[in-house]
Amino acid sequence: MIKASSAEIRRILENINRFNSTPEEGEGTTRVLFTEPELESRKYIKSEMEAVGLKVTEDSVGNIFGTLEGSDPTLSPVWTGSHIDTVLNAGMFDGMAGIVCGIEALKMISRSGITPKRSISVIVYTSEEPTRFGLSCLGSRTMAGALTPEDMKRLTDKDGKTLYGVLTELGYDVSALPDVVRREGDVFASLELHIEQNRHLDDAKIPVGIVRGICAPTNYEVVIKGVQGHAGGMAMEDRHDAFMACCRFALELEKLAKSSQGEYVTATIGRVRVYPGAVNVIPGYVGFSVDIRSIDMESKEIIMAQLEKVKAAVEEEYGVSVEMRLDNHDIPLKCSETVLNVVRDVCKDTETESMELISGPYHDSLFVGRFAPAAMIFVPSKNGISHSKDEWTDFEDLATGTQVLAESLC
Amino acid sequence: MIKASSAEIRRILENINRFNSTPEEGEGTTRVLFTEPELESRKYIKSEMEAVGLKVTEDSVGNIFGTLEGSDPTLSPVWTGSHIDTVLNAGMFDGMAGIVCGIEALKMISRSGITPKRSISVIVYTSEEPTRFGLSCLGSRTMAGALTPEDMKRLTDKDGKTLYGVLTELGYDVSALPDVVRREGDVFASLELHIEQNRHLDDAKIPVGIVRGICAPTNYEVVIKGVQGHAGGMAMEDRHDAFMACCRFALELEKLAKSSQGEYVTATIGRVRVYPGAVNVIPGYVGFSVDIRSIDMESKEIIMAQLEKVKAAVEEEYGVSVEMRLDNHDIPLKCSETVLNVVRDVCKDTETESMELISGPYHDSLFVGRFAPAAMIFVPSKNGISHSKDEWTDFEDLATGTQVLAESLC
Repeated sequence: MIKASSAEIRRILENINRFNSTPEEGEGTTRVLFTEPELESRKYIKSEMEAVGLKVTEDSVGNIFGTLEGSDPTLSPVWTGSHIDTVLNAGMFDGMAGIVCGIEALKMISRSGITPKRSISVIVYTSEEPTRFGLSCLGSRTMAGALTPEDMKRLTDKDGKTLYGVLTELGYDVSALPDVVRREGDVFASLELHIEQNRHLDDAKIPVGIVRGICAPTNYEVVIKGVQGHAGGMAMEDRHDAFMACCRFALELEKLAKSSQGEYVTATIGRVRVYPGAVNVIPGYVGFSVDIRSIDMESKEIIMAQLEKVKAAVEEEYGVSVEMRLDNHDIPLKCSETVLNVVRDVCKDTETESMELISGPYHDSLFVGRFAPAAMIFVPSKNGISHSKDEWTDFEDLATGTQVLAESLC
Repeated sequence: MIKASSAEIRRILENINRFNSTPEEGEGTTRVLFTEPELESRKYIKSEMEAVGLKVTEDSVGNIFGTLEGSDPTLSPVWTGSHIDTVLNAGMFDGMAGIVCGIEALKMISRSGITPKRSISVIVYTSEEPTRFGLSCLGSRTMAGALTPEDMKRLTDKDGKTLYGVLTELGYDVSALPDVVRREGDVFASLELHIEQNRHLDDAKIPVGIVRGICAPTNYEVVIKGVQGHAGGMAMEDRHDAFMACCRFALELEKLAKSSQGEYVTATIGRVRVYPGAVNVIPGYVGFSVDIRSIDMESKEIIMAQLEKVKAAVEEEYGVSVEMRLDNHDIPLKCSETVLNVVRDVCKDTETESMELISGPYHDSLFVGRFAPAAMIFVPSKNGISHSKDEWTDFEDLATGTQVLAESLC
């Protein structure tokens, strides 16, 4: 196999980075689904795919496939790929790295004179970020059958446009949306390269992370209703303080996550609103978010069951009502051991230093993993920074990751 | 002693209530310091004082005195009174009740043919509410020497006008401000009538509360700085979660207040801001208010000392920084037993049902109590509601309170 070219990876990444709604100094890169820069970047990616001999196709939800055709068309294909859309004021690596390294990997395979038995596709999944429609992984979610045409008619952006309407407007054949859905067996294996968005690899100075699992969030919106009162007028024993009740709930949740027997279990309360919010008023109402993650569903469900007891205990102790609305309960992914073993062997054979990781953030592979054996390769993020103009990955690390990717794909 | 007239009390209260910046239906009463309605209400009150034969004077900060002169001018006077300014969209009783019942009480004394030895003044204290200048009890605070002319030059309203400037503009003799300050011995005793602003009397159906102490707040602004991170990307053991640290701090504070040996100790966290405030982001920064009240300074200071240990423990446990800024540390008032015994005896003699109470909110008497033996009488607030258009006290209860006030004053 020929070597991955960090110069080529850099060239294409920098070209993609020019398609940007916020080109002003210090504003980073913004490329939101189906805006002008995003549509232009799609054209550009297709031209790069064609330039290395890949066959380009696009499905009804805008997932783009660049395919290196295999010698046996009856065999199910191998997939790689990621996304080109961004959050607001982002960097140039999150998502794009997986596409550019995928194209480079297929070029390496083809230029090395290797004709794989199975077709290999590098895929641009439509809108992994929730920036426009408030929902992430639109392309891969549709493939997994978890986003139906009916859902798309309900999903609106800030201007009130539906995803279904926007697809129609752009000329996508929405009548063929059911064909986007994949079933088990349709895809032989999937391996996505992505930046780590955390500091483990950077801290350890290791170029490749082998991702054993992808966490998925379970989200509640919790409302505690107590009794509002004057801070001076109500004795401690007469209170039904919604904020103190929230604190008790939060610390019990933290304890559940810390004491969980499951692998990589986290619990976060990130958004908190305390009403009425005056120095001298006992809060009567607190609303807050709960985010529980793990790489196994069972660990999450144990915590959810325990949380019902916490809710009852807090209601009893503080004389408040605690309402928990379950907004989201996604299934985590334990990556395919078959795919992982391929990557492990490649790292060993090529003497590439690697470490095994869990992905806290989720990616298109979470959904691809529902119908195909899937795994991911991580490359280092400088200081773990992502979703920021300061996001950075060295091009040499991308080349190392691409080498492992290329060897693993064929 | 002749009987208090609930009709007279009602007439004057309803007249005062017409001086209102928010006369629209459902908007309640707004009468902010030195606005047109407040200035007009001052004129009206003076006319009612004069109508019952009181001698009217006004000091350099706008405190109005209506005095029934005593037979021995060498003796120090007795005071009663309260305030006529309001919070925004308030009711018609908070403050005004104390002035109107005071005028009625002095009329009763005078019409009963009683000439007291000591002069008795009903006082309109300037701006008890912090509505205009963000600081409460401007008149009584000045009397207590706790608001100097220099302070008044710094104290600004939302338009940038200083209290000192406004007083000058209105023609008050600011050069005489030092004369406003009273010293121990200047006033024989003070007894303020006020609505309870809590539900104890209303719940117990008792017309008179004897206020044994007035709590004063100690206020901190606390900032906890942790490390912001992705909810999925950071394992529990790697976190420095500013919100969880805040919760630990809050529950420890609650425990300190509940277990305090002091009388009537409260602790409240009323305003909380969690940053950045996203469902999937571990909070890196939390700012919140702490309000500690008691009727004895020592209990507050014990909690303050313990809170330093809580701060250190939270910093240690969560690896965060906790900054506590002490913004306010007011001295509570234990009411004068001499004055309280007079009121207790009057209630016994007149067979008026009463209960002893602590005032959580503070009043002008908190400052008057710094230079004179002071106590308060509370009358019931319907459902404990105050600072609201729904604030209500029955005129009959005001008459009962006035009867006790009049008998106590002479």
